[in-house]
Amino acid sequence: MPTDLYKVTLSEDQIPTHWYNIVADLPTPPAPPLHPATGEPLTPADLAPLFPMGLIEQEASTERWIEIPAAVREIYRLWRPSPLYRARRLEQALGTTARIYYKYEGASPVGSHKANSSVPQAYYNKLAGRTRLTTETGAGQWGAALAFAAEIFGLEAAIWQVRSSFEGKPYRSAQMAVFGGKAVASPSELTAIGRKLREQFPDTTGSLGMAISEAVEVAAQDPNASYSLGSVLNHVLLHQTVIGQETLKQLEVFEEPRADYLFACAGGGSNLGGIAFPFIRENLAGRQQVKITACEPAAAPSLTQGEFRYDFGDTAGMTPKLKMYTLGADFVPDPVHAGGLRYHGMAPLVSHCYHEGYLSAIAIKQREAFEAGVLFSRAEGIIPASESNHAIAGAVRQAKATPAGETPVIVIGVSGSGQLDLPAYTEYLSGEMPNT
Amino acid sequence: MPTDLYKVTLSEDQIPTHWYNIVADLPTPPAPPLHPATGEPLTPADLAPLFPMGLIEQEASTERWIEIPAAVREIYRLWRPSPLYRARRLEQALGTTARIYYKYEGASPVGSHKANSSVPQAYYNKLAGRTRLTTETGAGQWGAALAFAAEIFGLEAAIWQVRSSFEGKPYRSAQMAVFGGKAVASPSELTAIGRKLREQFPDTTGSLGMAISEAVEVAAQDPNASYSLGSVLNHVLLHQTVIGQETLKQLEVFEEPRADYLFACAGGGSNLGGIAFPFIRENLAGRQQVKITACEPAAAPSLTQGEFRYDFGDTAGMTPKLKMYTLGADFVPDPVHAGGLRYHGMAPLVSHCYHEGYLSAIAIKQREAFEAGVLFSRAEGIIPASESNHAIAGAVRQAKATPAGETPVIVIGVSGSGQLDLPAYTEYLSGEMPNT
Repeated sequence: MPTDLYKVTLSEDQIPTHWYNIVADLPTPPAPPLHPATGEPLTPADLAPLFPMGLIEQEASTERWIEIPAAVREIYRLWRPSPLYRARRLEQALGTTARIYYKYEGASPVGSHKANSSVPQAYYNKLAGRTRLTTETGAGQWGAALAFAAEIFGLEAAIWQVRSSFEGKPYRSAQMAVFGGKAVASPSELTAIGRKLREQFPDTTGSLGMAISEAVEVAAQDPNASYSLGSVLNHVLLHQTVIGQETLKQLEVFEEPRADYLFACAGGGSNLGGIAFPFIRENLAGRQQVKITACEPAAAPSLTQGEFRYDFGDTAGMTPKLKMYTLGADFVPDPVHAGGLRYHGMAPLVSHCYHEGYLSAIAIKQREAFEAGVLFSRAEGIIPASESNHAIAGAVRQAKATPAGETPVIVIGVSGSGQLDLPAYTEYLSGEMPNT
Repeated sequence: MPTDLYKVTLSEDQIPTHWYNIVADLPTPPAPPLHPATGEPLTPADLAPLFPMGLIEQEASTERWIEIPAAVREIYRLWRPSPLYRARRLEQALGTTARIYYKYEGASPVGSHKANSSVPQAYYNKLAGRTRLTTETGAGQWGAALAFAAEIFGLEAAIWQVRSSFEGKPYRSAQMAVFGGKAVASPSELTAIGRKLREQFPDTTGSLGMAISEAVEVAAQDPNASYSLGSVLNHVLLHQTVIGQETLKQLEVFEEPRADYLFACAGGGSNLGGIAFPFIRENLAGRQQVKITACEPAAAPSLTQGEFRYDFGDTAGMTPKLKMYTLGADFVPDPVHAGGLRYHGMAPLVSHCYHEGYLSAIAIKQREAFEAGVLFSRAEGIIPASESNHAIAGAVRQAKATPAGETPVIVIGVSGSGQLDLPAYTEYLSGEMPNT
């Protein structure tokens, strides 16, 4: 019998001591990344100009458990363990006998799961003597998380924010500035590729691909700088596994030894991998049989509509080639509000797990996502991020499909807070949100 | 010796079971409110057109402990107990040997302490058969909290938001709408007084006084409606005492049996009273000797510059007369960002405690407040509300004045999250914030 609690917040000494590396448990190994020019499997040396060795080692590691450095765990204590809630009022609103739980990453600094990886990334860069981090950001969540982490370790953060987002979402660049990070609108005058793009397309509103090119250009030319990525790569998903590990422990405190369904939103894949990989471990070991569903936006349906093949991580073809579900590196998603999910590909590890049948996927249009988000907000008092609404919509579908009297355990990964997404809610409530 | 924890979140069964009514412990009774027309002490019947009897009884109660109804406690479980943090990184940033703790109300629904009172207010109105709540809101925090609480109990929430705030802070009205509340810009066409004001002053940007008049007019004319207030009145401060009660328990878990200083921001007085009254009880009983400081904005310095006398709660003179520190009911504060603190008076109970010497007060200009807020954000990873920054600035002054090696315990009430105040931070960081 489950407890009558609403929420479980573990004590600080229950913050995971290790990140979980799913590669160690995969029966078939995932395909390696390839050098963009030679087509050969990538070596650590190929990555050295862009990343510090600590992260490169994690990227290629096959060890099951990688110890979280004490300095990183110390910073995690500012907000971790994050709470797991029983969504009792959402269950009532849905009239379901299913038991719904949600893991909430929105109470972190910057309001999303992104800080789980920005902090170790900044740490390993500091350790390697780098003084400057460059990155790109679309919706701004990753940029804010990196600014916070850079501040902690005394590094400079230079963030190229897609121009349309920079101009349309001033709260996000304000948040980066509070944490001491500097966001510039991309394409910018600060890089050769930026100046070229501005000359070619004077009216461009920018794109993630352009912003990546600028951030990579600066990091590649400056020996004191590293490039940081907020999703897709193995080491980023590795860092996020604190989410799923905590969730498993918290379900035990709720006296729910088994979950039946897990829903998480998926863009680049770091939120999904972070919560799902520890559950996949349980499934592979035969201890649980959790049905895991990636909830992607219908506007960027890489898993449900893409091809599983090698492709570039960016539009310009500057990155290594990754074996992943992709809509093509030149795919431009419709402008949906879940900016954090507008990516043409899917993390290679998530893609591999999907290909092997360890998780399934659904694509959700944004009106259904926001309908679920408003229902959730009114019931639970927490306004979820646009991205998280896709996971909630998946869980709502499942709860509605549950026959009366049946009591499956449904877990939702709520990756972030929607306080800075409020204009999107306004558009939804006005009835004018395009249903893409 | 204090523990090495960063945060203490109590379990749900440690949510206070009773609100604490400081009136029972005051050696001299506070002066009663007076009828605006007759000048006689107010009777419950005088308040009946505007408030339900459950709240009127609390307003006049002299009982020490008032039980929190089960239905309210059930909703409190969505976010209470709120966390108490040890601000270790802020201590390091300040280079102080003082131990600094902060009670954080920003993780509540709507992101501030206001939900602690909006929920019981909606509950007692539901119990009395009212179907509609009216209120005014300046910065929007109270309006959002009331919208959320009304939604919980199936009531309608009609919110008059000062026009300049309605137009300049679209995120706040969006938040109210997500929770099902309807905000209109005041003065509006929906009331006689609103239409009259628009005719008289076609270009007015509105004021709190005008918005109160509209909300009161509607509640007074509709027998199914009540008027709700987010601060100032005894019952509102009563509800907020869950903050201070939890803080005392959490300090014990930190193994800090005594606090030396407590700083809280003060506008109408509900946040200050909520955290401070349980500490005043400890002081009056001789168990502690905590120095309590109200941190008010220099732009509305009711305690430090006002007179202690009977005055109206609103600009138009429609409310009862309250014995309080006041700058005069017609005082218009400079436009500072801490909209929640821009009030001409101070809650009668807080005024009484100040007059009796149970707490002191300081006035803080907004640049000092935001300087402290940015320091706090970068250290702790939480961006505080504009209002809360005043309390943090007070604590920073105290920490800086602490001789090296001394270890006073400083507690800060951080009343809310600053995610929706980010434009104010941008102004501060640009150097263009007026220093009022």
